[in-house]
Amino acid sequence: MGDQNNLIPGPSPRVLEKLVVPKRILLGPGPSLVDPQVLEAMACPLVGHLDPFFLQLMDEIQESLRYTFQTRNRLTLPISGTGTAAMETSVVNMVEPGDRVLVCVNGYFGSRIAEMAARHGGDVRTLQRRWGEVFTPTQIQEAVDEFSPKVVAIVQAETSTGALQSIEEITPIVHAAGGILVVDAVTSLGGVPLRVDEWDIDVCYSGTQKCLGCPPGLGPITLGPRAEEVLHQRKTPVSAFYFDLSLLSKYWGTERMYHHTAPITANYALREGLRLVAEEGLESRWSRHRRNAEKLWDGLEALGLRCHVEKPHRLPTLTTVVVPPGIDDLQVRRRLLEEYAIEIAGGLGELKGKVWRIGLMGYSSREENVDLLLDALKNLLNK
Amino acid sequence: MGDQNNLIPGPSPRVLEKLVVPKRILLGPGPSLVDPQVLEAMACPLVGHLDPFFLQLMDEIQESLRYTFQTRNRLTLPISGTGTAAMETSVVNMVEPGDRVLVCVNGYFGSRIAEMAARHGGDVRTLQRRWGEVFTPTQIQEAVDEFSPKVVAIVQAETSTGALQSIEEITPIVHAAGGILVVDAVTSLGGVPLRVDEWDIDVCYSGTQKCLGCPPGLGPITLGPRAEEVLHQRKTPVSAFYFDLSLLSKYWGTERMYHHTAPITANYALREGLRLVAEEGLESRWSRHRRNAEKLWDGLEALGLRCHVEKPHRLPTLTTVVVPPGIDDLQVRRRLLEEYAIEIAGGLGELKGKVWRIGLMGYSSREENVDLLLDALKNLLNK
Repeated sequence: MGDQNNLIPGPSPRVLEKLVVPKRILLGPGPSLVDPQVLEAMACPLVGHLDPFFLQLMDEIQESLRYTFQTRNRLTLPISGTGTAAMETSVVNMVEPGDRVLVCVNGYFGSRIAEMAARHGGDVRTLQRRWGEVFTPTQIQEAVDEFSPKVVAIVQAETSTGALQSIEEITPIVHAAGGILVVDAVTSLGGVPLRVDEWDIDVCYSGTQKCLGCPPGLGPITLGPRAEEVLHQRKTPVSAFYFDLSLLSKYWGTERMYHHTAPITANYALREGLRLVAEEGLESRWSRHRRNAEKLWDGLEALGLRCHVEKPHRLPTLTTVVVPPGIDDLQVRRRLLEEYAIEIAGGLGELKGKVWRIGLMGYSSREENVDLLLDALKNLLNK
Repeated sequence: MGDQNNLIPGPSPRVLEKLVVPKRILLGPGPSLVDPQVLEAMACPLVGHLDPFFLQLMDEIQESLRYTFQTRNRLTLPISGTGTAAMETSVVNMVEPGDRVLVCVNGYFGSRIAEMAARHGGDVRTLQRRWGEVFTPTQIQEAVDEFSPKVVAIVQAETSTGALQSIEEITPIVHAAGGILVVDAVTSLGGVPLRVDEWDIDVCYSGTQKCLGCPPGLGPITLGPRAEEVLHQRKTPVSAFYFDLSLLSKYWGTERMYHHTAPITANYALREGLRLVAEEGLESRWSRHRRNAEKLWDGLEALGLRCHVEKPHRLPTLTTVVVPPGIDDLQVRRRLLEEYAIEIAGGLGELKGKVWRIGLMGYSSREENVDLLLDALKNLLNK
């Protein structure tokens, strides 16, 4: 076994100090703030992942997720990874090598879906719009007519641009052409109206760290009957074992077939986060997010700041603000964090350096946070 | 937006009650018990994943992981998924379609590596041993000579059988033939001697919920120079974006290139779990695990119970005990849980119904837990 002297030495003294976490007001694109009740749940002791108590908790999570997604889909569960993992789960289960995939790209996350679909062997075509704009049903119709895709993917809430895409007019177009629709709801689930069944969405996924008010680490997903059929009709196995929904549905279903060890505490948190969603009620929650966003928009306008997205397509959960000319993007954000403990984010991709991204999601979406941010911006911008 | 009446109704009353978690003594194959200091860390408020504080925490985790793995490998980080995700990360990054992969299978998790390698297009050959036995260098040598694999994968600590595989004689065999060695250390990291650099292991991965005393949800992994070279020489992109180590190393490296949102609180927990590993010291920790295991083995023997694995190859962190003839496997486990709040597990795969699996890992590896279990077994088996 060797002796101490043989060991590679331990970490530096700083690492041996107990963790002390600074307090932040998280108004960026996520993670957002977590309700104290959810944090409390995360400190609960562990149980085994096959414990009768945990099996019941898994059922409860699925039940609450169905409400939050507004669906009756059997296959509704959290992927044991972040929103990006849920995105990849959607792609890898729906796309087989050679399948035609139409991806609507008007921001960073659309591009990412396209990249994933290509990696998994899809015949990918992208439909492009400028970052901050949204797609019209006519455009989708034309692209679908021309390409006849098996899968169409679109982002409801583009975290990179702050644009809100209307979904309900798109599903009939995709279905009429025999395709299935995958919707990214990472920055909308629990914060913006989303009705999976009523809108007839086939695959919808999200993350826990945005409007659900939980820490990042799980990626809720739901599959409707058409998507389940695609799963059953596959000719090739899903390349990623970890994301294989046929196996995952047996782990989360009555079979309880071992697949991996579910992240216990993250699921405690999700259970509590979803309980708070149900307690508040979805429509009250959607209204709260919109009310606080409008307060923010009005306040920004009063400061002479301009939103990047036109009001009719503006996302209530994530606002992109144009960095005014002559203002140092980075310095403002650094001072917000250091002097006011407020986090907002810069632009991503082609909006880098051009916008700030302000999130009002989940527990972060509160009137007092809007006031704090507007006051701080007023001071920092000398308005 | 519709009105309340349009909504699919919320979850049942039970789900609307606040979470109350039962107390368990976790002596199964994982998750194991979590140190109260780690649980406390999980209740800390969130910071952003690009917050300077979190970036420093990421560095601290990498530093502590290097110590725990006993390596100086640059590419050492936690995958944002469970141990299964880390396993798949190893496979998908090292194996390209058509690559020869030799997988040593003497239990459930060996089979799983083989399945993943096949899904990702590997030309897979398995080397088999009975469940509970280990591989000799001679066997590996013969298989390597015959098959000339690019990748050899082996499990150090088979959670399904309780066998401890010796690794250090195997690396020179694999390297002499120009291959790289992937080692599964899910049930050994932090509990059983493991020296990645000294033993010259190329890829090694683990989970957080075993000997590190954290909740499940992260999968530590480390890659040595040969494995990094394989990564750079790839001709095809890694199919899974989420597991692409070239991208992940830029997120965890100085570039801080956005890839996904790291699970913040799971990383708080890992930071604290690893701090406690360093505080205890690796060799003391290894000794503690062995000491408690030996106490368990002696106690089981005194009760007339037989271990499934021969003593020289027995894993200190996970013990498989033969279910005595005439004893109802399930009933004993149910009574242990219900009457004593102790969780142990049944057999997996070909050992199903034949053994119990008793884990003494991380915070669960304590003398009093061994006593509690032995007393309970004595009562339940009428010894």
